[in-house]
Amino acid sequence: MHKMFALTSTDSGARRGELTTPHGRVQTPAFMNVATQGAIKGGLDARDLKTVGCQIALANTYHLHIRPGDELIRKLGGLHRFMAWDSPILTDSGGFQIFSLSGLRKITEEGVAFASHTDGRRIFMSPEDCIRIQANLGSDIAMALDECVGIPSEREYVKASCDRTFRWLVRCNEESQRQNNTDDAVNPGQALFGINQGATYPDLRIEHMKRIAELDLPGYAIGGLAVGETHAEMYDIIELVTEHMPSARPRYLMGVGTPSNIIEAVARGIDMLDCVMPARNGRHGHFFTWGGVMNLNNEKYAADDTPVEPTCDCPVCRAHSRAYIRHLLKAGEALAMRLAVTHNLWFYNSLMSRIRGAIESGSFAAFRREFSDRLSQRI
Amino acid sequence: MHKMFALTSTDSGARRGELTTPHGRVQTPAFMNVATQGAIKGGLDARDLKTVGCQIALANTYHLHIRPGDELIRKLGGLHRFMAWDSPILTDSGGFQIFSLSGLRKITEEGVAFASHTDGRRIFMSPEDCIRIQANLGSDIAMALDECVGIPSEREYVKASCDRTFRWLVRCNEESQRQNNTDDAVNPGQALFGINQGATYPDLRIEHMKRIAELDLPGYAIGGLAVGETHAEMYDIIELVTEHMPSARPRYLMGVGTPSNIIEAVARGIDMLDCVMPARNGRHGHFFTWGGVMNLNNEKYAADDTPVEPTCDCPVCRAHSRAYIRHLLKAGEALAMRLAVTHNLWFYNSLMSRIRGAIESGSFAAFRREFSDRLSQRI
Repeated sequence: MHKMFALTSTDSGARRGELTTPHGRVQTPAFMNVATQGAIKGGLDARDLKTVGCQIALANTYHLHIRPGDELIRKLGGLHRFMAWDSPILTDSGGFQIFSLSGLRKITEEGVAFASHTDGRRIFMSPEDCIRIQANLGSDIAMALDECVGIPSEREYVKASCDRTFRWLVRCNEESQRQNNTDDAVNPGQALFGINQGATYPDLRIEHMKRIAELDLPGYAIGGLAVGETHAEMYDIIELVTEHMPSARPRYLMGVGTPSNIIEAVARGIDMLDCVMPARNGRHGHFFTWGGVMNLNNEKYAADDTPVEPTCDCPVCRAHSRAYIRHLLKAGEALAMRLAVTHNLWFYNSLMSRIRGAIESGSFAAFRREFSDRLSQRI
Repeated sequence: MHKMFALTSTDSGARRGELTTPHGRVQTPAFMNVATQGAIKGGLDARDLKTVGCQIALANTYHLHIRPGDELIRKLGGLHRFMAWDSPILTDSGGFQIFSLSGLRKITEEGVAFASHTDGRRIFMSPEDCIRIQANLGSDIAMALDECVGIPSEREYVKASCDRTFRWLVRCNEESQRQNNTDDAVNPGQALFGINQGATYPDLRIEHMKRIAELDLPGYAIGGLAVGETHAEMYDIIELVTEHMPSARPRYLMGVGTPSNIIEAVARGIDMLDCVMPARNGRHGHFFTWGGVMNLNNEKYAADDTPVEPTCDCPVCRAHSRAYIRHLLKAGEALAMRLAVTHNLWFYNSLMSRIRGAIESGSFAAFRREFSDRLSQRI
C-alpha cells in the first residue's frame, strides 16, 4: 500500500510519476475531476468522464454521508459501482465542507459536531467515523479528517488546531488499518493521505508537515489553501511545505486551481490537484483554451461560426460553434453547461497530459514560461 | 415536394409510411423530438439525439425568431448547421406559443402582434413573416401560422378564427412558394403543412379541414388539441378530422401526448406526433417503461440496484441503477435530468419503432390492446 507511488522522472522542480490504486493506475501530475455527490456537474456521467480523459474522480465524504448515505452505497457495492465508474476514486474527508458549508459546528478533541446543509440535522463526525464512512464508500484514496482553518486566523488558534489535526490523523490512520483488515472491506487496498495545515504561518506549516511525515502514510496533501490568501502567498507555502514532504510519496494540493496555479504548483513538486473551476466557470460561460479564458457570453461571439478552440479534439469543439454555445447560454439551456464542463474538463486533463509530456522531455521550464501567464488571461 | 409522403401499408386504422425530406427520410408513424430553442432539454446534443433514435427534430419559430434570431441562423448556414443536426427538422409556426406564452397579443387580419416572453418587446408576425422566418431557419417542414383557440371557446369566435386561419394559410402557401423559388433559399425543398383548427366543434373542424385540403399542401396537421379537452373528446375530433384528411398526405397531430395517446392517435390514422412529455415528466423523475410510468422519487427505489427497465438497451439502463438515479434526483444533480430525458426519448422512439413493426406485421390491433392502457399507468 505504501508503495502506491513511483517517481519516474523530474524536471525543473516538477515530478513525473505513477500512482497505483486498486482500480488502476494514474499518471501524475494528475488533475482529479470533481464528482462531489457521485456525479459531475453539468450532466456528465461516468462514460463522459472517460471521454474527457479523466484518470481519477474525486467525491466527497461529507456530501455522500448526508445523501444518499454511505451505508446505502456500501450495500450497493461501493461508490465505484454506484456511480458506474470503474477507475480510481479519491474521497475528500469532508473537513473543508464541514467548515465551509455547514452551520453551528462545534469542534472538540473527540471530533466535530455540525448541522447538515440540506436539512439542518445534527451530525457528529469523529476521525474514526470519517474513515469508516470512506471505507463504506470504498474509494481508492481516503483523506484524513482535518480542521480547515480560515486565512487569516490567529496564530495561537492555528497552532492548537494543527496539534489536534495531528492527533486526529493518528486516529484516522489506526482506524484505516482496522477498516482495511476487516473481512468484508469494500476496498481493502484503500490508502490514507494525511493533510498538512497551518494557515500562512511558515513555522507551523513546516512543523506540522514534519510531524505527519513521520507517520509514513501512503501520501500527503496540502490543505487550507486557495481560501483567501494571494497567489504569491500560496506559492510560498507550497514551496515551504513540499521541501518537507517525503519525495517518495505523492503530494496532493487540495482545491487548486486555475491552469496557471496548476503549472506553478507542479513546478513546486505537486503531483495531484483538484478544483471545481472547470464546472463553476463553465456555468458562467467561461471556456478554458490554450490562448486564455474565453467568455462566450460576449457579444463578439454571437455570429462566430468557429469552435471554441479550433485545434481542440474534444466532442464540443468537434461539433459546435461559439455562436451556438453562446445562444445556449443566453437561452438558459442545460446543454450550455454540459458543453462547457465537457470542454473545460477535457482542457484540464489535456493540460496535465502536456505537463507530463513536458516533464518527460525535459522541457517543463519552457512549457511553464510559455503558458503559465497566458492560460489565465481573459480573451 | 407534394410527393414527400409514401403510404406503404395500413392495419386496423393505423398507417405505415415514409416521409422524404431534403435531409433524409422519416419512417412513420414518427415521434418528433422537441428541440424548441435548437437544443433538447436536459443537456442532450445532436449526437445524443442520434443515440436515442430520433428521426426528426422539432424546433420553434417563435422562440428562435426571438432568440438568437432567424437572420443570424440564416447567416450561419441555417438551423441544421447551427445545431449540428443533419437529419430532418420540422419547425412549429409559433402560433401555439404566441397564444400560450406571450402577453398582450392582438390579432388582426394582417397578423398577430404580441410581446416577447423574454423581454416584453413588441413583435408583429404576419403569415408571410412566419414563413420567411422558417425559410431563414431552413427547416425541412414549415408549419403555417394559425390561431390556436382555447377549449372551450365561443362557437362564433372559433368560426371567425377558422376563417382567418384559412386566409392566413393561403398567404403562407403563396409566401412559401416565393421563398422556395428565391435564388439563395437556405432549404429550397422546404414543405409547408397546413393546420386544422375548430376547437371541439365537429362541423367547424370538418369544414376547416375540407377547405385546407383543397390547397393540396404537402401535409396537414391537427392543431389546438391537448389544451384542456378530455382524452375522449380529443380522440373523437381526431377521428372526425382524419376522415377528411387526404390519405396521400402525412397527418401530424400537434403536441400529443402520452404513450397511450400516441397509440390511440395512430389507431386513428395519425402519422406524426410531438410532445414535451419525455422531458417535462423526466424533470420530475418520471421514467416511461413498457410496464408503465415509474416515479424514481419513490422511496422504494432508494436501494434498488436494477436499471429503470432491465430489458432496455438505452445508455441509461445499460449503465445506471434506479438507486443512483434516485440519488441524483434528490441531490438536484443535472445528470438526473439528462438520464431521464435520454431514457424517455429512447422509450418514445422505441415505442414508434414497435408501432411501425406491429403495423407492418398486421398485429397493430393486438399491440394496441396490450399496451394502450398499460403504458400510462403509474407503477
